[in-house]
Amino acid sequence: MSMKRKKISVIGGGFTGATTAFLLAQKELGDVVLVDIPQMENPTKGKALDMLEAGPVQGFDANITGTSNYADTADSDIVVITAGIARKPGMSRDDLVQTNQKIMKSVTQEIVKHSPNSYILVLTNPVDAMTYTVYKESGFPKNRVIGQSGVLDTARFRTFVAQELNLSVKDITGFVLGGHGDDMVPLVRYSYAGGIPLETLIPKERLDAIVERTRKGGGEIVNLLGNGSAYYAPAASLVEMVEAILKDQRRVLPSIAYLEGEYGYEGIYLGVPTILGANGIEKIIELELTEEEKKQLDQSAASVKNVMQVLN
Amino acid sequence: MSMKRKKISVIGGGFTGATTAFLLAQKELGDVVLVDIPQMENPTKGKALDMLEAGPVQGFDANITGTSNYADTADSDIVVITAGIARKPGMSRDDLVQTNQKIMKSVTQEIVKHSPNSYILVLTNPVDAMTYTVYKESGFPKNRVIGQSGVLDTARFRTFVAQELNLSVKDITGFVLGGHGDDMVPLVRYSYAGGIPLETLIPKERLDAIVERTRKGGGEIVNLLGNGSAYYAPAASLVEMVEAILKDQRRVLPSIAYLEGEYGYEGIYLGVPTILGANGIEKIIELELTEEEKKQLDQSAASVKNVMQVLN
Amino acid sequence: MSMKRKKISVIGGGFTGATTAFLLAQKELGDVVLVDIPQMENPTKGKALDMLEAGPVQGFDANITGTSNYADTADSDIVVITAGIARKPGMSRDDLVQTNQKIMKSVTQEIVKHSPNSYILVLTNPVDAMTYTVYKESGFPKNRVIGQSGVLDTARFRTFVAQELNLSVKDITGFVLGGHGDDMVPLVRYSYAGGIPLETLIPKERLDAIVERTRKGGGEIVNLLGNGSAYYAPAASLVEMVEAILKDQRRVLPSIAYLEGEYGYEGIYLGVPTILGANGIEKIIELELTEEEKKQLDQSAASVKNVMQVLN
Amino acid sequence: MSMKRKKISVIGGGFTGATTAFLLAQKELGDVVLVDIPQMENPTKGKALDMLEAGPVQGFDANITGTSNYADTADSDIVVITAGIARKPGMSRDDLVQTNQKIMKSVTQEIVKHSPNSYILVLTNPVDAMTYTVYKESGFPKNRVIGQSGVLDTARFRTFVAQELNLSVKDITGFVLGGHGDDMVPLVRYSYAGGIPLETLIPKERLDAIVERTRKGGGEIVNLLGNGSAYYAPAASLVEMVEAILKDQRRVLPSIAYLEGEYGYEGIYLGVPTILGANGIEKIIELELTEEEKKQLDQSAASVKNVMQVLN
Repeated sequence: MSMKRKKISVIGGGFTGATTAFLLAQKELGDVVLVDIPQMENPTKGKALDMLEAGPVQGFDANITGTSNYADTADSDIVVITAGIARKPGMSRDDLVQTNQKIMKSVTQEIVKHSPNSYILVLTNPVDAMTYTVYKESGFPKNRVIGQSGVLDTARFRTFVAQELNLSVKDITGFVLGGHGDDMVPLVRYSYAGGIPLETLIPKERLDAIVERTRKGGGEIVNLLGNGSAYYAPAASLVEMVEAILKDQRRVLPSIAYLEGEYGYEGIYLGVPTILGANGIEKIIELELTEEEKKQLDQSAASVKNVMQVLN
Repeated sequence: MSMKRKKISVIGGGFTGATTAFLLAQKELGDVVLVDIPQMENPTKGKALDMLEAGPVQGFDANITGTSNYADTADSDIVVITAGIARKPGMSRDDLVQTNQKIMKSVTQEIVKHSPNSYILVLTNPVDAMTYTVYKESGFPKNRVIGQSGVLDTARFRTFVAQELNLSVKDITGFVLGGHGDDMVPLVRYSYAGGIPLETLIPKERLDAIVERTRKGGGEIVNLLGNGSAYYAPAASLVEMVEAILKDQRRVLPSIAYLEGEYGYEGIYLGVPTILGANGIEKIIELELTEEEKKQLDQSAASVKNVMQVLN
Repeated sequence: MSMKRKKISVIGGGFTGATTAFLLAQKELGDVVLVDIPQMENPTKGKALDMLEAGPVQGFDANITGTSNYADTADSDIVVITAGIARKPGMSRDDLVQTNQKIMKSVTQEIVKHSPNSYILVLTNPVDAMTYTVYKESGFPKNRVIGQSGVLDTARFRTFVAQELNLSVKDITGFVLGGHGDDMVPLVRYSYAGGIPLETLIPKERLDAIVERTRKGGGEIVNLLGNGSAYYAPAASLVEMVEAILKDQRRVLPSIAYLEGEYGYEGIYLGVPTILGANGIEKIIELELTEEEKKQLDQSAASVKNVMQVLN
Repeated sequence: MSMKRKKISVIGGGFTGATTAFLLAQKELGDVVLVDIPQMENPTKGKALDMLEAGPVQGFDANITGTSNYADTADSDIVVITAGIARKPGMSRDDLVQTNQKIMKSVTQEIVKHSPNSYILVLTNPVDAMTYTVYKESGFPKNRVIGQSGVLDTARFRTFVAQELNLSVKDITGFVLGGHGDDMVPLVRYSYAGGIPLETLIPKERLDAIVERTRKGGGEIVNLLGNGSAYYAPAASLVEMVEAILKDQRRVLPSIAYLEGEYGYEGIYLGVPTILGANGIEKIIELELTEEEKKQLDQSAASVKNVMQVLN
């Protein structure tokens, strides 16, 4: 009967990784190991120590350590991958994909070596292809390799709707399928304020504008920041998925999941509604789609396959 | 009978200011306005929006806005000042003091204009002199102008002690007087693990090492990060003080307070134990000091006066 | 700029009242005054003291006092009425109504006298008629006199659905109109699991059984307890409504609200979707109903009017 | 790598047991099974269901079930015993001891049978003798059988001190040794407000009065209630101990622990400062006592032995 604390490793000590580590510790979900490359070892240790020193004041009791040594991640229950580069001006999409693929492969080898029974959550973009890469490289069963995008997309959608209606965000729900950004397939008919379908509360053109703003939600932050991309909401989204698994909550959350026939697709990772619990993705929920929705989802799947062709 | 939400403005949209804003919103202490200079308006808006989008997932319901227009801070209940520059290589201490003094004056004029009844918390370094500057410039009563340093110092001390004893940080307390860093006067005899005096649990040389590490706690993070300084623990410390005031908790917390005879000092801001409640600093607690402690506190006070001579 | 704590009075120190007081204090929503009749003054003081003594361990900082003197409730921001008798074997419904009406009148006079600007939440059954009584007796505007039943009904519905589907209750929503119990009008088409309409996830006969169990949810607990009725979930429901008002959340929650033409009814209190914020009921949301739903709601309204005829 | 939820069984479905179950679920520490005798099965089920129905509103996700069948407690991680009778007018102390001893034996046999690897927390009075009974009957190692009294006693002490000084209870600490009630040995010199020894803040006679009130803290509530005894603060105290073990916090908390030479006693359970973590009582902390404190502790130990002689 072991009361040992859960252990969560976060790969990538940038803003998203660090914020994820902090939010995990705040919730006392387990001890947290923040990992970055050897050149970044000291800054990573510095961030971890700074967070740890917030514990006495915030009232949380969790260890947070920074390292560049994967041995420190040994026997993690969950590993969250935020490592990878962002697309820089002048960089081709294929270069981005191949660079991040290389990073995913190397990170995955370390995870498999040190935490062979772990669950892996992937945030790195392009997230569908990167989650696929981690899946293949790890040899883990598909329920244990999961990508994040829909929790973040719906969080943004909910924020915009709450502002539009001047209502508590607690009572707004949203629903998306497919990939991130332009490939996102919003199911507005499954989105509500206090249970009331949004389509009856918000004029179509306003709702379309909100959907469009959600699609470009990541870019909106990038443009405002000028240098860098969003990290608070992405980190919070990862933490919600980790919590669902660690606490065996059987939450209904959108995940980037490996499809073997579901929705008519085979052998790709795509954003679909899932049940997240003690076994990672415990189930993929298949919804009947309208013709228009299915068409959009096909585009999203085609886009994923397109990126996958670049993979080595 | 107004149920209007509290309003908290955070001046300075850097890492500390942004993290403070986020932690305030998480606790639903009120709506938060994050303010920076016009050149930083877009990044500040970007950070605020990113935080807001974390709300649906984290389950908090508070508005967070970014701005460079002080009119947006109108009628704040509390204003937290994190603005200011850090000392750069080659910069003299006097240049630092005078530059930050100028910033404090300009920020304070805006606060007085837009939130004449607010409480002001100051984090900017050198914090004793900067809190004094804000006090003088604002014309506010002394209970409404407060500096932070001791909450952070004790948080670090508690962290190190918890590690040393391998105990929960929840059961470790610490106590400091005087200024930040080298001027910190640790009252180890008032520091405990589960109520048991640390002096009986930790050998003197280890305890001395912990005290020394605490004194240099800010520098430790600066050295590790390589570029920048701590922000998680400083932000958490500010938030604890804001909460004590907004919720009228009458907490016993160390504050940088204006002394008029207490501890034998007149007309300076210095770190002392205080009661923080609805009226800001409701009381300064005077302790009997040992000769050695008094000597150290005198040095700390002298150091503050020294910096104050540089003020214009 | 007052940081004075909010003050919430709970009338009726029975299980529901006491549990409400405890949950309010846990959330640090304000200081709490628990009120009962003079003969129950000591037990009420005992419960309040016991709760207060849980504060250091649970980490909340709120005062809780027990009293039989309404002067102690002076200047409450919100008053929650849980007082009243339950129907005993052999007691006619009319006797119940008239006894509780008398209690409501007397309680309301005290509230008006001591907290003329307060918001009043009513739980006492039959809740529609009792909220009406408080409204009339107080002379308060309708937005400040609110009854509870739908938050509890949907909480029960959500619990049963979560069990049926073996999913997290966090992702289940429900929706009801009309009165409590047999008069409840469930809008199953506005009820979801992870945004997916329940009608597509649960066979009709199972869903009907869940609706029926929800209708009789109060009775189920009464039958199991043998002596007394539910208090945990009712108290939690009241607290959610108090929080929505005190924190100005603009939540979309079902309330017993005074109707002046909405849904075609005039001059009665009935359960409808509302927006709860700083002004109490800020808006009644009118939904288009199916013929069947409208018929059921008519029955519910007729039932309320029926009870109202018994009022003196 | 199992993410299975922790399981906590609470034996005794009275007010304390039920409140303990509720507070455990609120914190999502695991799924909770509330157990009472067959005659009380329905009320126990009723309470559990009512609590469960509060989950959607309070936002917690934990199963709570009521039962009289110990098979339902199988493989519990922790079992909390609140069962037992209270002393009734005219009942001799020896009758009380022997009746509760019988209950402890029977409950323990069930625990050993169904959860052989569990940790057991005992609240039933007289708690020292009852914890000893459970220890002997279970054959469990001493670190896994633990009694509660000091967490509650210090919670009361802290409450009274906070009121006396009009300070936040968050900053008050207390320290007791020995048994419950009249046998309590308060270590006032290890009790502080914001780290400042209480002896320097409160006049001796007032402090003596607070100590005396703490000693009689259980009786104060009994007298006020008229019928029954305290349950909120006792439940909260149990939950803090459960949390320390389940989250491996290594908290410094007073426990009723089995002594084998510590403090000079052999083979008795007595209240002493302990470290609570993943292994239950991980360490007993031995303090140097003053002559007066040692004398009081001797009395407390003698009192425990006295009761133990009544055990069969």
